[in-house]
Amino acid sequence: MKRNRAGICVLVLAAPLLLFSIDPAAAAEQGQPGEGSAPPKARVLVAYYSRHGNTERFAEGVAEGARRVPDTLVTVKRVEDVVKEDLQAADAIALGAATYFAGIPGTMKTVIDDWNWKWKVDFTDKVGGAFSTGGGQTGGKEFVVVSLLMFMINNRMVVAGPLYQDAEGEDIWGEAGASAMTGPLDPGVSEKELDAARLLGERLATLARKLRSAQPRLP
Amino acid sequence: MKRNRAGICVLVLAAPLLLFSIDPAAAAEQGQPGEGSAPPKARVLVAYYSRHGNTERFAEGVAEGARRVPDTLVTVKRVEDVVKEDLQAADAIALGAATYFAGIPGTMKTVIDDWNWKWKVDFTDKVGGAFSTGGGQTGGKEFVVVSLLMFMINNRMVVAGPLYQDAEGEDIWGEAGASAMTGPLDPGVSEKELDAARLLGERLATLARKLRSAQPRLP
Amino acid sequence: MKRNRAGICVLVLAAPLLLFSIDPAAAAEQGQPGEGSAPPKARVLVAYYSRHGNTERFAEGVAEGARRVPDTLVTVKRVEDVVKEDLQAADAIALGAATYFAGIPGTMKTVIDDWNWKWKVDFTDKVGGAFSTGGGQTGGKEFVVVSLLMFMINNRMVVAGPLYQDAEGEDIWGEAGASAMTGPLDPGVSEKELDAARLLGERLATLARKLRSAQPRLP
Amino acid sequence: MKRNRAGICVLVLAAPLLLFSIDPAAAAEQGQPGEGSAPPKARVLVAYYSRHGNTERFAEGVAEGARRVPDTLVTVKRVEDVVKEDLQAADAIALGAATYFAGIPGTMKTVIDDWNWKWKVDFTDKVGGAFSTGGGQTGGKEFVVVSLLMFMINNRMVVAGPLYQDAEGEDIWGEAGASAMTGPLDPGVSEKELDAARLLGERLATLARKLRSAQPRLP
Repeated sequence: MKRNRAGICVLVLAAPLLLFSIDPAAAAEQGQPGEGSAPPKARVLVAYYSRHGNTERFAEGVAEGARRVPDTLVTVKRVEDVVKEDLQAADAIALGAATYFAGIPGTMKTVIDDWNWKWKVDFTDKVGGAFSTGGGQTGGKEFVVVSLLMFMINNRMVVAGPLYQDAEGEDIWGEAGASAMTGPLDPGVSEKELDAARLLGERLATLARKLRSAQPRLP
Repeated sequence: MKRNRAGICVLVLAAPLLLFSIDPAAAAEQGQPGEGSAPPKARVLVAYYSRHGNTERFAEGVAEGARRVPDTLVTVKRVEDVVKEDLQAADAIALGAATYFAGIPGTMKTVIDDWNWKWKVDFTDKVGGAFSTGGGQTGGKEFVVVSLLMFMINNRMVVAGPLYQDAEGEDIWGEAGASAMTGPLDPGVSEKELDAARLLGERLATLARKLRSAQPRLP
Repeated sequence: MKRNRAGICVLVLAAPLLLFSIDPAAAAEQGQPGEGSAPPKARVLVAYYSRHGNTERFAEGVAEGARRVPDTLVTVKRVEDVVKEDLQAADAIALGAATYFAGIPGTMKTVIDDWNWKWKVDFTDKVGGAFSTGGGQTGGKEFVVVSLLMFMINNRMVVAGPLYQDAEGEDIWGEAGASAMTGPLDPGVSEKELDAARLLGERLATLARKLRSAQPRLP
Repeated sequence: MKRNRAGICVLVLAAPLLLFSIDPAAAAEQGQPGEGSAPPKARVLVAYYSRHGNTERFAEGVAEGARRVPDTLVTVKRVEDVVKEDLQAADAIALGAATYFAGIPGTMKTVIDDWNWKWKVDFTDKVGGAFSTGGGQTGGKEFVVVSLLMFMINNRMVVAGPLYQDAEGEDIWGEAGASAMTGPLDPGVSEKELDAARLLGERLATLARKLRSAQPRLP
């Protein structure tokens, strides 16, 4: 019997999702909404503020990347349309903005300032990531990413950025988020820039799934 | 038999550490160094650069907070003394610095610049947090915290800060890290400031444990 | 005659304001509004967004410091009450904010986002400085200062912070702006914190006067 | 006589440099090193830290822009080669760096940390600007610019960035500094990116000249 138990444990360690598909009772233990025998899905919310459509297009790239991760439910919304339930349900949130004088647009900040204070959403341990669009190589789009990360950390989230490696696999690194240059020098959102958005989405979904798998295990 | 399996699964979900203590073979599956039937411990490294001892004292506060979390192994080291094995073994890393003109001291940055590039440490998904000391209310100690977080995100870590709530439990929030004002206005590191250090340590250890419990379960 | 001219030149170099009081024609050259024989005054605008009154009190400190500099006209206004003429007339602008999740309050950012885009104010070479209030030692009040400075640089201003020196006059340094900790650890705005506000105001007024004295001299 | 004096004053106001070329005594009043009857030149120091040559090339762009401004002496040096006299003589300093994990390279920071503390250089009111190179759209090169600006503000400098306007002259704005993307997506330093460097240099030289013209006039 001991050997049997060990065998099952290995199974648990190696493939809990498989286990859940065998045994609905275990899934039910996690308090998931009734999804039959399906594994619990990680939910990723992509919320953005777009002026001319560039940030919207970039948001779609983030969503696309998140969808690459199995068992991920992705919602993409204008930040003005996000409701309390979206935030509560999300395991990961990607926030994106156009760059207004090197900062988060006031209209967007006004919306998100309410999420904790007025709506009383508890963001503890949700995964956060940020993206932005803006003109100019040094026009503030990276500072917007940092500002959004700071907003999320100050809302108790854990934050991360996309992962990179060079062609030779010799160097590996991360970035603070994803952004696209949309000014006169480099108009629109290019395919290559969308790759960064996709990597961000993929990273957030992966982390969300990982943290979700851990959550029930700790008091 | 199915019921039995479910019973074990519930056990796994609710208390994997207990399971490991029953069955050493399962623990071995995780590739842990031989700790007998003990649960895998989360390792927290607190690495700091101190000029006058304030940052060192603050680092001890971070370590103290991390030790509050069960099953946590905490190492505190001057950043110059950190070796590759410390970094590789760490599930969470807290980096702390004195403030040099609103930035990370050059001597410290020189050391940590090598960790990925020369030492080839892979920091992916390690938990990161930051602390600092500095004179003045706006003298750069918070910017040092942000700079250290940026360093860690760009090294593929996930970063977070300490969690707070007001006395009434009505408001909850986080901060980007922990810092102590050590200039003429407010010399030394006070007990109240150390509380922030402890909260940071506790937060990082909790997240490290959480992510560690999830790690073996995903491909 | 050469000696005479030299004498006048020395006068010009040493004390242009005195010269103007002798000779209104010279003042008129500067295109100043008719202030008789008075020297052109540097105008400092202190604009703030306050939630509970702390930032308002801090703004008064900035204004007090600016008034220490001779020939300075200081205006203090809630950011919502600032009109286009205030901005155009100002030689220096101090922007201050309460800290909302480590960022500029959305309501304030919405107001100032319009200043350049909609109101078409030209901020080129105006002197900028920033201040903030917020709870917590690492709760984002310094990041708000940096964010406000970034806003101003991206609006073509030149920015600076208050100047400090230690008691022995051995060390001298600056800070990015001024801020007060107003959370549970250290409620309200203390006298010592107001000193930082005053130093910021004094610094901005001094720079405004300096740049104003230079402006008419260059093509 | 009064008319005469006014005439001279107008001359002073409109073209002080011309005046100095007429009257060396006036120039001597400014305590300039003996440059005969020449106007006092504004000195711009471009100091950089380059790894692969990209930042060096970008530094040359900054210098080129600064030289566009009449009466400007430009010095370009590796940051390791800068001596105390370079810093003391400079009216403006442009600092540039390659991006090391979203921060100033440690080797560079170690050098510049000493400038005030050990070398006791007084940077008060010198004009500062920043530039950087780095791979990736969100890889930290803008955060390096912000970090360098923070370093300079905390060294008592006034900082500014390049000025922009759109083709129609309808929108005007500034940026925090200049940077070039040098990673795989966009290797090397392009002509268009160099334009940003040139604008930064031009801006710093213009401000340096402006502040220099004002300096002797205030107590």
